[in-house]
Amino acid sequence: MTIDKISLIKASIKSIPDYPKPGILFRDVTSLMEDAAAYKATIELLVEKYKDQGFTKIVGTEARGFLFGAPLALELGLGFVPVRKPGKLPRETVAQSYELEYGMDTLEIHTDAIVEGDKVLMVDDLLATGGTIEATTKLIRQLGGEVAHAAFVINLPEIGGDKRLEALGIDVYSLCEFEGH
Amino acid sequence: MTIDKISLIKASIKSIPDYPKPGILFRDVTSLMEDAAAYKATIELLVEKYKDQGFTKIVGTEARGFLFGAPLALELGLGFVPVRKPGKLPRETVAQSYELEYGMDTLEIHTDAIVEGDKVLMVDDLLATGGTIEATTKLIRQLGGEVAHAAFVINLPEIGGDKRLEALGIDVYSLCEFEGH
Repeated sequence: MTIDKISLIKASIKSIPDYPKPGILFRDVTSLMEDAAAYKATIELLVEKYKDQGFTKIVGTEARGFLFGAPLALELGLGFVPVRKPGKLPRETVAQSYELEYGMDTLEIHTDAIVEGDKVLMVDDLLATGGTIEATTKLIRQLGGEVAHAAFVINLPEIGGDKRLEALGIDVYSLCEFEGH
Repeated sequence: MTIDKISLIKASIKSIPDYPKPGILFRDVTSLMEDAAAYKATIELLVEKYKDQGFTKIVGTEARGFLFGAPLALELGLGFVPVRKPGKLPRETVAQSYELEYGMDTLEIHTDAIVEGDKVLMVDDLLATGGTIEATTKLIRQLGGEVAHAAFVINLPEIGGDKRLEALGIDVYSLCEFEGH
């Protein structure tokens, strides 16, 4: 049953050559969400994996992390906390910069959205370098939250983001893996 | 029961003075999503309103529209189609520009995400001027989709976005209203 769901999910993800630049084969989760059965199976598998484990909050990163983190939070009966690009969150925030291939980017979280002792699950669509989830881990820990788990729909293990996150004490889980970058 | 849910939702929405600029009292849906009971009530009320009405797809606009449109799509068993800022969608897109207070912005949708005869429900967090939903309406209609309904968590009726969308043949529904801009 789980294998059937994973096959359905993997088959629904379109691969787009040369996006966003030549040589990259982009794995497109929008095609997954357009497929109601595949999208439902995705959330069901995440619920099965993470229910009854004492999590208190789900954190999702802008914008595709919202598409999996928010439904999972609703199913688990937990609050959902967004991590966003600078200037998008209206209350007091803390910020964390991280390296891109060329240059830097910054993520923010509401200071009052995580409280001491929160047990947080991070959710995103795809694990590549792990840079955004490393920055998110630092934000949550800075606010006193405990975070040791990250869930992805897709992992690209050749890029090595999973190793990078495991070195931070994050247990990485993904529903499917693809070759390439 | 519905009134209790609406009270819970409205109470969960924090009001942030002078954001994003002086004189604006910003209605913050992130505080709603952080409150698991209020977030659940929001989706339940939207499901009650829109179930069994023959919709074939839910369209949500980046990024806060994802947070309500995607869970609603999952609950209704429908596919979810994102409308995004330029350059964010990997497949072939059509684009629509719209006016901001100062300048213009553009939204895109995947060309193959809507097919002739689709009956589409648009979902967003907040209705102010209605500019993004007007642009989204044009995108959906350009692709042959039928769209006559838009759902919002919050409406700011003094700004008049509801009148603007009704003039386009869109039936506007919101869970709660706030005064001001």
